[in-house]
Amino acid sequence: MSIRIGILGYGNLGRGVECAIRQNPDMELVGVFTRRDPSAVKTFGVKAYHIDCAAGMKDEIDVMIICGGSATDLPKQTPEYAKIFNVVDSFDTHAKIPEHFAAVDASAKESGNVAVISVGWDPGMFSVNRLYAGAILPEGNDYTFWGKGVSQGHSDAIRRIEGVLDARQYTIPVPAALEAVRNGEAPELTTREKHTRECFVVAEEGADLERIEREIVTMPNYFADYDTTVHFISMEELQRDHSGIPHGGVVIRSGKTGLNKEHGHIIEYSLKLDSNPEFTSSVLVAMARAAYRMKREGMSGCKTIFDIPPAYLSLKSAEELRKTLL
Amino acid sequence: MSIRIGILGYGNLGRGVECAIRQNPDMELVGVFTRRDPSAVKTFGVKAYHIDCAAGMKDEIDVMIICGGSATDLPKQTPEYAKIFNVVDSFDTHAKIPEHFAAVDASAKESGNVAVISVGWDPGMFSVNRLYAGAILPEGNDYTFWGKGVSQGHSDAIRRIEGVLDARQYTIPVPAALEAVRNGEAPELTTREKHTRECFVVAEEGADLERIEREIVTMPNYFADYDTTVHFISMEELQRDHSGIPHGGVVIRSGKTGLNKEHGHIIEYSLKLDSNPEFTSSVLVAMARAAYRMKREGMSGCKTIFDIPPAYLSLKSAEELRKTLL
Repeated sequence: MSIRIGILGYGNLGRGVECAIRQNPDMELVGVFTRRDPSAVKTFGVKAYHIDCAAGMKDEIDVMIICGGSATDLPKQTPEYAKIFNVVDSFDTHAKIPEHFAAVDASAKESGNVAVISVGWDPGMFSVNRLYAGAILPEGNDYTFWGKGVSQGHSDAIRRIEGVLDARQYTIPVPAALEAVRNGEAPELTTREKHTRECFVVAEEGADLERIEREIVTMPNYFADYDTTVHFISMEELQRDHSGIPHGGVVIRSGKTGLNKEHGHIIEYSLKLDSNPEFTSSVLVAMARAAYRMKREGMSGCKTIFDIPPAYLSLKSAEELRKTLL
Repeated sequence: MSIRIGILGYGNLGRGVECAIRQNPDMELVGVFTRRDPSAVKTFGVKAYHIDCAAGMKDEIDVMIICGGSATDLPKQTPEYAKIFNVVDSFDTHAKIPEHFAAVDASAKESGNVAVISVGWDPGMFSVNRLYAGAILPEGNDYTFWGKGVSQGHSDAIRRIEGVLDARQYTIPVPAALEAVRNGEAPELTTREKHTRECFVVAEEGADLERIEREIVTMPNYFADYDTTVHFISMEELQRDHSGIPHGGVVIRSGKTGLNKEHGHIIEYSLKLDSNPEFTSSVLVAMARAAYRMKREGMSGCKTIFDIPPAYLSLKSAEELRKTLL
C-alpha cells in the first residue's frame, strides 16, 4: 500500500515535493491544498483543493507535507495541522526552533500524530552531520560555510530599497578560510572572514545608483558585517544569467584524537545544489516516509532528524540496506 | 552515573578506544581484556585482565567494545560476548555482514543485550551517508573513493612476498575520476579508473627487485586490476616517512531532481584522517553510548548505524542538541 501524501502550500517547495514524489514508488500524491482559488493553481498534474478541505480528507492522507514559509506560515500551520495529520515541515528559523518544537510537540502528542520539523539541508542534513561529527570527535571545532548560492532573504532585502526593481544576492565562502579549515588549522574566523556577498541589482531608470549601493553595503544584519560587491545589470541579464536558485555549502569538523591530541581529523559534508527548493523538497519527502513508519510503530509527538533512525528514510528493507549499503 | 566500558583486545583499535574514552566525560574505562599475559600488556593506564576474567565482571561493565580483527576474531567473539554484555564491534568484511548480523542478533536477542556491529568509517559513517543520500536523491549514482591512505591488507600482502622485509601500501583516488564525479558527470568507472596503488617496499639485501615488483603488480585481487607503482626504500626511510596510519576517502551521490531531471545535485561526505584506527575507535566509543541507551530503553538484538537515532550518539541532551546544533 502506498504512503498517501498531501502538500499544504504550493510555491517552489510544494512544486518540488510534487516532483520528488514521482521518484518514490512507494508514495502517492493525493492533493495540493492552497489558500488561493484552487482552479487558479497550475500544478504538474495533481488535483488542487482549497485549504479548508484538508481536514475533511483526514482519512485519505497519511502525511501532510507543509510547504509554507518559516516567518509566518509554519509557526501557525504546523501545530494546527499536527492535530489532524502526521506532518513534516522545513521550519528554518534556527533561534526559534525550541519554541516551534514545543508548540508542535504539544499538538502532536495530543492527537497521537508524528510531526517532523526543521528538515531540509540547514536545518536538516547539515545539522545531523554536525551531530555525528561532534559525537565522534568531542575535541574539535565546527565550521559551516554556505554557498555559493542565492540567499532569498538577502535578495528580498535589496528589493525593498527604493529604486530597485529586482535583485539577486549570492553568498560565497571565502576560499582562504575554507582552505585553512580543511588543512586542520582550526582558525577562529569572523563573519567577514567566512563569507562574501555579491549582489546583482536591476535599478529603475534614473535611480541614484550610488545611494542604492551605499544602502546595500551598510544594511545592518544583512550586509554591514560582510565584504559586499554590487553589480548593476539589466532586467534581461538578470533573467538570463540569474534565474536559477542554486545553493549549497559545507559543514566541517576539525578534531583531534590520541593520547596527547597528536592526530588531526577532518570530517566534511558538502552540498552543491542546482535547485535549493527541490533539494529541500526531496529531504521533506524522505522524512514523510519516516513519519509514516514512526506513526505505524505507535510513536507520536514532535521529532527532528536527530531522533529518527536513518533506515526509516529509505525505501529499502533493513536486510537490503545491510547487504547493499553497509 | 558513568557508562562503564570494557575493551576486549588491545591492539591499535583498543589503544584508540582507551584514548577516546578520556575525551568523553560520561564514560569510565573499567579494564582491557586480553588473550595475552595481562602483566605483559602495556596500556596507557587502565588495568589489563585476562580475557577469561571478562564474564565474571558482567555486572561491572555496561558495554564491551570488541577490538579484534574481522577475519577470525569478531565472527567468534561478537556473538559469544553478546550473550554476556552489550557489545560494539567494527566488523568490516562487507560481504559477510548479513551472516555476522544473523549470528550476533540471535545471541543478543537471547540475552536481552544490544549489539552494535560494523561501525567505524566504512562500514559506518560512509554507510550512513550512502543511505541518507540515496533516500534523498533516489535518481542518482553512488561513488566511494578511498584514500589517500594506508591499506593494512595490501601492505600485509606485499610483506608475504619472498625477499620483502617490510612494506607500506597507499591507496590513492584518481584525481580526474573524482573531478568528473564532483562535476556531476556521473561517469561509469572501472576499478583501474578509480584508484591507483603506491607501494613502498624494503627488500632483503641481494633480493631480486624485478621479481618482487612483478609479483606485486600482477597479484590477483590485490593489485592486478590497478595501476601500481613500486618504490624500493631503506628500512630507515620506511620508518621515518611511512610510520603513520593515515586514511580517508569520500562518498559522493550525484543525483537529479525536477520534473524532467533538469537539476543536478552533489552530496559529498569526506574524511581526512591522521590515524585510521583512532578515528574508528572514536566511532566505536560514540556507538557504545548509543548501545547503553538502547539497552536502558528496553531494546535488544543486533543493530547497525542505520537503526540508531543519531541523538543516541551524543553526550548532549535532546533540548541542547535542538538548541545548539539543529
